[in-house]
Amino acid sequence: MSLQDEDLPETRVLAIASHLFRYVGNTMATFVMQSLGCEVAALNTVQFSNHTGYRQVKGTETTAQEIMDLYQGLRQSYLVDFDVLLSGYAPNAAAVRAAGEIGLDLQRKAKEKPGSFFWVLDPVMGDQGQRYVNEDVVPAYKDIICHADLILPNQFEAESAFASRKRKRDAESQEENLTEAITEIHRIYSVPHVVVTSAQLSNLSHSAATPSTPPSVLTVIGSTVRSDGSPRLFRIDVPALDCFFNGTGDMFAALTVARLREAVFAADPTLRHTKSWISPDDIVPTSLPLARATEKVLASMHSVLEKTMEARDLELRTGNITAGDTASDGSHEHSASEDAQKREHLWRTKAAEVRLVRNVKLLRNPVVESKVQEWSE
Amino acid sequence: MSLQDEDLPETRVLAIASHLFRYVGNTMATFVMQSLGCEVAALNTVQFSNHTGYRQVKGTETTAQEIMDLYQGLRQSYLVDFDVLLSGYAPNAAAVRAAGEIGLDLQRKAKEKPGSFFWVLDPVMGDQGQRYVNEDVVPAYKDIICHADLILPNQFEAESAFASRKRKRDAESQEENLTEAITEIHRIYSVPHVVVTSAQLSNLSHSAATPSTPPSVLTVIGSTVRSDGSPRLFRIDVPALDCFFNGTGDMFAALTVARLREAVFAADPTLRHTKSWISPDDIVPTSLPLARATEKVLASMHSVLEKTMEARDLELRTGNITAGDTASDGSHEHSASEDAQKREHLWRTKAAEVRLVRNVKLLRNPVVESKVQEWSE
Repeated sequence: MSLQDEDLPETRVLAIASHLFRYVGNTMATFVMQSLGCEVAALNTVQFSNHTGYRQVKGTETTAQEIMDLYQGLRQSYLVDFDVLLSGYAPNAAAVRAAGEIGLDLQRKAKEKPGSFFWVLDPVMGDQGQRYVNEDVVPAYKDIICHADLILPNQFEAESAFASRKRKRDAESQEENLTEAITEIHRIYSVPHVVVTSAQLSNLSHSAATPSTPPSVLTVIGSTVRSDGSPRLFRIDVPALDCFFNGTGDMFAALTVARLREAVFAADPTLRHTKSWISPDDIVPTSLPLARATEKVLASMHSVLEKTMEARDLELRTGNITAGDTASDGSHEHSASEDAQKREHLWRTKAAEVRLVRNVKLLRNPVVESKVQEWSE
Repeated sequence: MSLQDEDLPETRVLAIASHLFRYVGNTMATFVMQSLGCEVAALNTVQFSNHTGYRQVKGTETTAQEIMDLYQGLRQSYLVDFDVLLSGYAPNAAAVRAAGEIGLDLQRKAKEKPGSFFWVLDPVMGDQGQRYVNEDVVPAYKDIICHADLILPNQFEAESAFASRKRKRDAESQEENLTEAITEIHRIYSVPHVVVTSAQLSNLSHSAATPSTPPSVLTVIGSTVRSDGSPRLFRIDVPALDCFFNGTGDMFAALTVARLREAVFAADPTLRHTKSWISPDDIVPTSLPLARATEKVLASMHSVLEKTMEARDLELRTGNITAGDTASDGSHEHSASEDAQKREHLWRTKAAEVRLVRNVKLLRNPVVESKVQEWSE
């Protein structure tokens, strides 16, 4: 499968997220979308030296007022003809609300032309059981997600923020918890599309793992709502890689913007002129544009992360932890062994940075190996 | 000529310049360098909604202290192993000096390994006879350029800031003025490489124009210093396009970073381990890595700008000035005709934005048509 520039529809994206010096936030999302031919205007909600994986960071936040000013700057020069808004990390509740106001304004502008504007919201709140934003960010997201067309929570965000019932703790209930969260996202929050970007389900699910091995499969679950409000669930199981990478959520979101628009333009031509691109009820889950898009998204991600892991392993095997800089943070309170430990952590974190610019072909030409499956409610 | 990823040496770049929502400053430079396989850390000196071509702008400046903090953030996590610094637009003298401090620090770190770090400085001060930065920015640049390895002034910046004698006004003296400016940049400011990125010389020069037609040629003049301090001058004449594009200086700088490193790695292997990559005296001007790089840079630029002009002409012919947004800046003081004029200006400015993401192939696979020529002092 080869992707030509001509294949992807022209797409103008406003991306509201963080700016860092490595591939996380807008730094990841901008390049990924540009590589797929999208025009991207990046509104940076923070400028940080690095992501939190390094456990130390310097930089500044853009205030909610500054975010609105930048948007007004675009507006006054007629530069807001965006096809898609991708809103991601915002450093506080006020910034979340500012992104929400921008989304609403872009929707208002497009209301005469259904389907001409689409809002992808990535509610960045936490991961792996831990919230890493202030408590007041959660209600701010709850207030705005009802306006989004597609949200991309991870399992933690879907279950902790958007499911009203207390989730059950036992492994067998994980699928039930997720189905319930997705159903509520459709029914209570009125969000027509959702993808839960990474879920670790029990061994009892369709994974290849046997009871004697840990689950080696990540499951991505998505749904496009039916006209009766019920979910149309699909799942894709992908081989899990034994490494934690920063920025994968942003990569997922950026690829989804490009691939979903591509899939919608490949579907029946009425779909792109339908509000929120909701497919007719007779389209089965595995034939949904969202499902076809997610297949390609995961194919690209898996191959880029495989290359990243190879490069990381090579670096950890052959690289020199003491090479390069002799920087010091100026504090001499730590013992030599604490310093060595910290330095090793920084070195390992850097080694695992996603290898992006040399793997553009994998973004552009995904080879789909993990196929979408229907998932019954 | 086809460029494979493998052909370009791995290059880690720190890029210090402006962030905007279209292709100017770091927004241009980052994507161009990434498209050629460079890893780019973008330190944004401002976040603006658009470039000054629109004659109205909103956004914020990064303070000199914030610039230094971001750099310290990178330093404390050992993320400063850059091969190249590209420093461009800074909003005031303090920010210019901050970029200078960063350049000096990176040079100090690399001093044991000559050639392992290279500083490209684009002294953004003005164009076409007009200075568009504060007066105190000029001496700030004069203080730091003596540390840079390559500077990329345009004709205005070269002649007004870096030539000590008053330049002569008559057309026949233009070449003399430029030779003098370049000689002073080598001798007084000790900068080993210089490219004057766009010069409009008189008809008497090697252009194809006849006395009855205006010059339709832009001349780019460069030099790498000899060991006796004299310039080694080369020139490339490229067909001028009848349109003004914003961001071309940033595009030139970004392409030069990637292409110069490529040319240095293609030269005698001792060169890349030589301080400032200064070729031995027996290398003639047209064989300099800087000259070979500039040929490719200009080939890419010319073809991307040709595509941009085609797209602009199509937009101006078929596009609708009243389409899209109905934004207002809130002021109702202007007459209807002033509003219409302003709106037309904004529309024309937007139509001329450089078409970048769909023309990556032209960045990656330049077809050199305008060849470098020697230019005698």
